[in-house]
Amino acid sequence: MRIDRKRLEQTIEELGRVGATERGGLTRLALSDEDRRGRDLMVEWMRQAGLRVSVDQMGNIFGERPGQPGHPPVMLGSHVDSVPTGGKYDGQLGVLCALETIRTLNDHRVSTRHPVTLVIFTNEEGARFQPAMLASGVMAGKIALEDAYNARDKDGLRLVDELERIGYLGPEPCVPRPLRAYLELHIEQGPVLEEEGLAVGVVEGIVAIAWSRLTLHGVQDHAGPTPMRIRHDALVAAAEVVSGVRGIAREIGGDLVTTVGNLTVAPNIVNAIPGRVTLSIDMRDPKDATLDRALPMLDRVVRQACEREGVTYQLEHYWRVPSTPFDREVVDAVERAARAAGARHRRIRSGAGHDAQYMAAIGPAGMVFVPSRDGRSHCEEEFTPLEDIEHGANTLLGAALALAGQP
Amino acid sequence: MRIDRKRLEQTIEELGRVGATERGGLTRLALSDEDRRGRDLMVEWMRQAGLRVSVDQMGNIFGERPGQPGHPPVMLGSHVDSVPTGGKYDGQLGVLCALETIRTLNDHRVSTRHPVTLVIFTNEEGARFQPAMLASGVMAGKIALEDAYNARDKDGLRLVDELERIGYLGPEPCVPRPLRAYLELHIEQGPVLEEEGLAVGVVEGIVAIAWSRLTLHGVQDHAGPTPMRIRHDALVAAAEVVSGVRGIAREIGGDLVTTVGNLTVAPNIVNAIPGRVTLSIDMRDPKDATLDRALPMLDRVVRQACEREGVTYQLEHYWRVPSTPFDREVVDAVERAARAAGARHRRIRSGAGHDAQYMAAIGPAGMVFVPSRDGRSHCEEEFTPLEDIEHGANTLLGAALALAGQP
Repeated sequence: MRIDRKRLEQTIEELGRVGATERGGLTRLALSDEDRRGRDLMVEWMRQAGLRVSVDQMGNIFGERPGQPGHPPVMLGSHVDSVPTGGKYDGQLGVLCALETIRTLNDHRVSTRHPVTLVIFTNEEGARFQPAMLASGVMAGKIALEDAYNARDKDGLRLVDELERIGYLGPEPCVPRPLRAYLELHIEQGPVLEEEGLAVGVVEGIVAIAWSRLTLHGVQDHAGPTPMRIRHDALVAAAEVVSGVRGIAREIGGDLVTTVGNLTVAPNIVNAIPGRVTLSIDMRDPKDATLDRALPMLDRVVRQACEREGVTYQLEHYWRVPSTPFDREVVDAVERAARAAGARHRRIRSGAGHDAQYMAAIGPAGMVFVPSRDGRSHCEEEFTPLEDIEHGANTLLGAALALAGQP
Repeated sequence: MRIDRKRLEQTIEELGRVGATERGGLTRLALSDEDRRGRDLMVEWMRQAGLRVSVDQMGNIFGERPGQPGHPPVMLGSHVDSVPTGGKYDGQLGVLCALETIRTLNDHRVSTRHPVTLVIFTNEEGARFQPAMLASGVMAGKIALEDAYNARDKDGLRLVDELERIGYLGPEPCVPRPLRAYLELHIEQGPVLEEEGLAVGVVEGIVAIAWSRLTLHGVQDHAGPTPMRIRHDALVAAAEVVSGVRGIAREIGGDLVTTVGNLTVAPNIVNAIPGRVTLSIDMRDPKDATLDRALPMLDRVVRQACEREGVTYQLEHYWRVPSTPFDREVVDAVERAARAAGARHRRIRSGAGHDAQYMAAIGPAGMVFVPSRDGRSHCEEEFTPLEDIEHGANTLLGAALALAGQP
């Protein structure tokens, strides 16, 4: 049994048109009008595939293909939101390969012991509402529903109001539910599979992630008549922090990655000394212990930069996800399925957070990776060859079928 | 003859309410609705003072108090636009002390040989439309009218459309006009007068200014799975530039000031490596030769930072105003007027650009400074004691009268 490559290609193209950018990418921020149109299209396809569709309090969408009574489902899913000027593969490849898996089961009239349920998670990216993976976090009981509802975007709009506005504030409770397994296909977002000429990554787990935010308070003043000796420039201190964050990765080395992705200056005009800067720090490593070492280094970098420039600051370490090993049975099932699909593959660890990380707290979880050209993602140039996608989808199909079992 | 301190205080308070912020500052961006309301109030007061009001193609407002036929005017003025969360003194003190001067001449029924004309310049700050002092630049023939009209704010709105929208696209040509003298009262925006306990600065000239803009093109990618070794992070390079710009002032020393006031990151989210950063560089020194030395250093700082991180860039040195000495006769008149007003004073050089810089290209120009508390400006904490404002206004009155002459 194989998935239908042509059909999968068509759905990727069609969903990819919703929120498409001029240069081949995608801007489909969580709970925007583009997100709503993407969701509507998915729900239409899910209904056409005979799935029973429901929506929970966080806007997560479920489409169930029934199994035998009393058995918890194998869930397959990912997300349809994107970062600004992101790509057409991150997230949507997971939901579309899950849909293709279900369509293939339908084509062959295959019955399974466990239901097979397609799931689409809300606000995975964290680009509009913070933190990332907000809705699977609520489902896993790691984030309070109320906190998630009160998350605000940069314009001050609340997540719950935007859920309601686009018509996806559902009635079902967003709580842990019985789960046979959770499987997510996703692009690698790194260079390993491509460099080694492989089609599939059997994901063993996800790195630990720590997010911090820093606000620097300098003294806003005129850029002309204010002598250098009396300046307290928030951006000069922030620049030292950016360099220092890069320095932490250089000093610790290994697999640690550190990034300042967001930085905002006020009043942000040519002829005013910046009075306030806010910035984000993202640090990841396969080992929790590495982050335990990096975070105090960050504290020191910030303190020293601010002391030198005479600016005050607040530094919050507001989100931390521990290193997550995936379930051994699920990882083995993915590996066997990759082999059976004839896909060149290897075991790999994910450097990006995924909803699978929170789902692993609810039940057995695992992931299937496909390559990212030049290792790139979160950009318009994101690309995965169709041949690799086909191998990945067949791996997902095989693993799902093995875990769902025959009646 | 003295100005009316109480009346001046009231007009400062009343105009200060237009665009007032909660924390005692002002946000009255050029050609915004707040700017329009500020202009309307000024025009009302100018008409009440018997002035003949006209508006030119750049929205500059003139209010003439007639002199004897055939004599060019003494112009007194400044601007009513502000930076975002700026203060209540920068600009408006100049137009209100000019108004108070004219009201005082009216009170005493003083006739002058030369007309005395109040002028309000459009978009002095350069906070909304670039560069600063745009409208006096057009009047002096240093900036083409068409370029000024096509200047766009960050939302893409054109200056000419905004001029028309607020009703200040006037019919008079914006060209050099015969000028007896131009006099501008302004806050010092630096610490010197306050530190020395003086009320008035007799401004001898304005420093040279150079503005540059830099765009850095890195490779946007995911902050998680992208190893440090393959990153080209536009913000890491930008941070080195910010530190390097500070370093130029440290290396050259003296009176050189260097500032990165504006810095914008794309896509500006926590978990994406910044693909693009734009930033501004503002450098000023009393001597043109110092900027001639600093600009090649800036080129080198940018080139080295970008080479190290493997990012490409465009660097434009797009605006340069030479060091401007003021007219000796006008400076002497201001000094004599300060002495006659009983104001403790000194000669001083301006570190900030002012419309007086362009007006000096049209005719004899000079300025009167009053102190800035803690040297601060372009912030909500901007403040000048009323007693010093009174001394400044009397100095302006005395100098204007001396230059306008008796019939």
